[in-house]
Amino acid sequence: GMAAADVTISGYGRFGLEYIEDRNNDPLAEDTVISSRLRFNIDATTETDVGVTFGARLRVQYDDGDTYGDFNTAQFSVGYEGLTVSVGNVDTAFDSVALTYNSEMGYQDFSYGDADGGNTSNFFAYNSKGSISSVTPGYTGVAATYSISGVNLYFSYVDPDQYASSLPATVGEELGIAADWTNGQFSVAGSFVSNAAGVDGADLLFVGAAYNFGAGNVGLNYYDQDILSIVPGDSGSQVTLWGDYNFGATTVKAYISELDLDSGLNTDTAYGLGADYSLGEGARLSGSIQSGWGDAASGWTNTSTRADIGVRFDF
Amino acid sequence: GMAAADVTISGYGRFGLEYIEDRNNDPLAEDTVISSRLRFNIDATTETDVGVTFGARLRVQYDDGDTYGDFNTAQFSVGYEGLTVSVGNVDTAFDSVALTYNSEMGYQDFSYGDADGGNTSNFFAYNSKGSISSVTPGYTGVAATYSISGVNLYFSYVDPDQYASSLPATVGEELGIAADWTNGQFSVAGSFVSNAAGVDGADLLFVGAAYNFGAGNVGLNYYDQDILSIVPGDSGSQVTLWGDYNFGATTVKAYISELDLDSGLNTDTAYGLGADYSLGEGARLSGSIQSGWGDAASGWTNTSTRADIGVRFDF
Amino acid sequence: GMAAADVTISGYGRFGLEYIEDRNNDPLAEDTVISSRLRFNIDATTETDVGVTFGARLRVQYDDGDTYGDFNTAQFSVGYEGLTVSVGNVDTAFDSVALTYNSEMGYQDFSYGDADGGNTSNFFAYNSKGSISSVTPGYTGVAATYSISGVNLYFSYVDPDQYASSLPATVGEELGIAADWTNGQFSVAGSFVSNAAGVDGADLLFVGAAYNFGAGNVGLNYYDQDILSIVPGDSGSQVTLWGDYNFGATTVKAYISELDLDSGLNTDTAYGLGADYSLGEGARLSGSIQSGWGDAASGWTNTSTRADIGVRFDF
Repeated sequence: GMAAADVTISGYGRFGLEYIEDRNNDPLAEDTVISSRLRFNIDATTETDVGVTFGARLRVQYDDGDTYGDFNTAQFSVGYEGLTVSVGNVDTAFDSVALTYNSEMGYQDFSYGDADGGNTSNFFAYNSKGSISSVTPGYTGVAATYSISGVNLYFSYVDPDQYASSLPATVGEELGIAADWTNGQFSVAGSFVSNAAGVDGADLLFVGAAYNFGAGNVGLNYYDQDILSIVPGDSGSQVTLWGDYNFGATTVKAYISELDLDSGLNTDTAYGLGADYSLGEGARLSGSIQSGWGDAASGWTNTSTRADIGVRFDF
Repeated sequence: GMAAADVTISGYGRFGLEYIEDRNNDPLAEDTVISSRLRFNIDATTETDVGVTFGARLRVQYDDGDTYGDFNTAQFSVGYEGLTVSVGNVDTAFDSVALTYNSEMGYQDFSYGDADGGNTSNFFAYNSKGSISSVTPGYTGVAATYSISGVNLYFSYVDPDQYASSLPATVGEELGIAADWTNGQFSVAGSFVSNAAGVDGADLLFVGAAYNFGAGNVGLNYYDQDILSIVPGDSGSQVTLWGDYNFGATTVKAYISELDLDSGLNTDTAYGLGADYSLGEGARLSGSIQSGWGDAASGWTNTSTRADIGVRFDF
Repeated sequence: GMAAADVTISGYGRFGLEYIEDRNNDPLAEDTVISSRLRFNIDATTETDVGVTFGARLRVQYDDGDTYGDFNTAQFSVGYEGLTVSVGNVDTAFDSVALTYNSEMGYQDFSYGDADGGNTSNFFAYNSKGSISSVTPGYTGVAATYSISGVNLYFSYVDPDQYASSLPATVGEELGIAADWTNGQFSVAGSFVSNAAGVDGADLLFVGAAYNFGAGNVGLNYYDQDILSIVPGDSGSQVTLWGDYNFGATTVKAYISELDLDSGLNTDTAYGLGADYSLGEGARLSGSIQSGWGDAASGWTNTSTRADIGVRFDF
């Protein structure tokens, strides 16, 4: 390989209108707002003479409502051929596996069909923000990915506090494994995380499969979750059927998602309908209408009907 | 147009000596300090296949006295030919119109002849700073500019809190319009802002004209203001006569500004004398002596005699 | 010279394992952690037509344990041929002189043989961090370096509060001077700082010499210090003998350091043994074992045995 040291800035911007029915279940809240995000990744890489690549990343991310932006915590990596090992603020296995986010739609890439019904707080993932988030000083991960012949393998370990010689009894080290494979037409993916989000004993399983029929895709995602934040105190399983269909610059998208709660409580069936219009050069106009889990007065989260329309452009 | 996605960093640095007589009206304050600013604009742009350009900007700005720097809030834009629409932390019409800042001088580009006598807190403008400023989470603007045949048109709207379904009685949405035109020799500009800085019922008007006589310029700026921060509780009008004259690398500058207060109180006539020496490549050595509105013990702001000398370099 | 304006991002990343015996003298603390740093320098420069160069720098630095990163305070500079004058967050003379840090080793570049036995808090230096550090608003430096015929001269002045017309009785303006010279084989360096770190009356002296014997270097560093932070309330002198030896991609390093305390108390002899393995392109694998000043229960700092192994890569 060609040896080199380089710093690049990449990311994306998005802005548009976001409507959430009975936002925050607060009558004084405006239901329709201008929702936006600007993300810059600053990546430094050094490729050594023997082809080993060292990398480091900081991110700054602004979302509407933030009154400033600062940098998040650093991710370091070392890569050689198909293997990449990273430390620090790592991408976790459960968050990185293929298919799991494929039901997302709209310029904000949201879906009630994601794990935990649209919340992602019940497992550790890369922390995009600095002081605006609630990252703890000792949060430290080690992750590895390996790619060969269309198969990607993922491993991640997160210590919630590397500075403590022992963790409190309710806190555990999160361990995640995942794999995905595609031959172009068929794709399968699976992942498992124990002590999810550092909660001792909380496990989370994902299995997904998809089929590409040329003009589009159809897939099924299944989640088994020990802790649900959308219905606090409950656990259960979730299944999401999703599909997209492309004609010219336009892609239409749809999903339907069911929660089967261990308590026997009934949530509504969540669903979404969306469309992307490609503007070229990584820019698109996107919109969606999505319906959530039910009664906003229930204390559950992600209950609302919501809609968004806006643009996203990558750079 | 040529389609492309790009990230650039631009801005300026300036540093030098700043003298303010009886600084802060505090005998323990040093009158002469090293005053400095460093500004980085990070701009991401994506130009789509059909010539529509999407843009996003974050800024980090350090001024002497700051103990850190962070990013401000994001501005997003979409442009097509002469029209640019932006959302978020927008440049407002009143702050963007031509001529209004032309009496500024010194390496710090200050003038008592600006709107509100050198303070700019009485209308909304682009917020250069993040957590160091007092930006509120819901502050959201929409602005548009259109340029054709030497005419620039500006419109801006700022909602002080887009998340609230209604604003408090004393707070209003700021609306600004402006236009300027130049044929090279003659320039005219005008702008009007209602509910200025979100203060319900506070209006602010600007009209300016200038003449370029080859070796220099002369102009007259007029402001009518419902609220004055330099003389708290008062309102009035302000007129500023300014000029500059160029010979070789040197430009000399001067202004004189009068405040006519509705209360009948008398302020001094403010004036300034300055000079720039161009060093090429966007760098200059600049200095000025300026005299303010009067008695430092009066409770008014911007009363002092001040002087500065330093350099500014753009990049 | 070629006139130009430019912005560049450079810096380094490092990560690895750090062991500190009885870390923080706290039995609940983990002795071995993943220690890391990511540093980005953003440098803007403008070279004018006559060859004068203006520069400005902000830095963002993340260290493990930080929960965010922001920018530090700005440094401005003007350079012409061998002379550079800087203001603001300056590099100080005592911190910039050659040889003084040459006993450092490991991927973290640490040595008990540095001034004050591995602490650098007893003199002012460039502040790498923003709000995470305890920089005061008025901290302002002016520094100059001049290089000619292998000789470098350094001068620095730091006012702990430029906004105050007078400083408290126990606080002083820090003044530093330094010089170093090398002819390739022999190098000598010396520096002196008064009112070190703004402590009125605290002086700090350094003299060093080194000899390059082709495959490596050997040197002697001597420090005389009015205030010691490693043994609070004490003063004394410190001498460090260091050397390195290179064969192929590997460099082995060693040092031994003695403290002679004015109080007559005995500290242990500190020493270190380390090795670097060059990976090319500014990347290296480094490790070290170092032994500190003695009894962790004594209230002294930098007492422990420590070891580190990791990588550092520059970009």
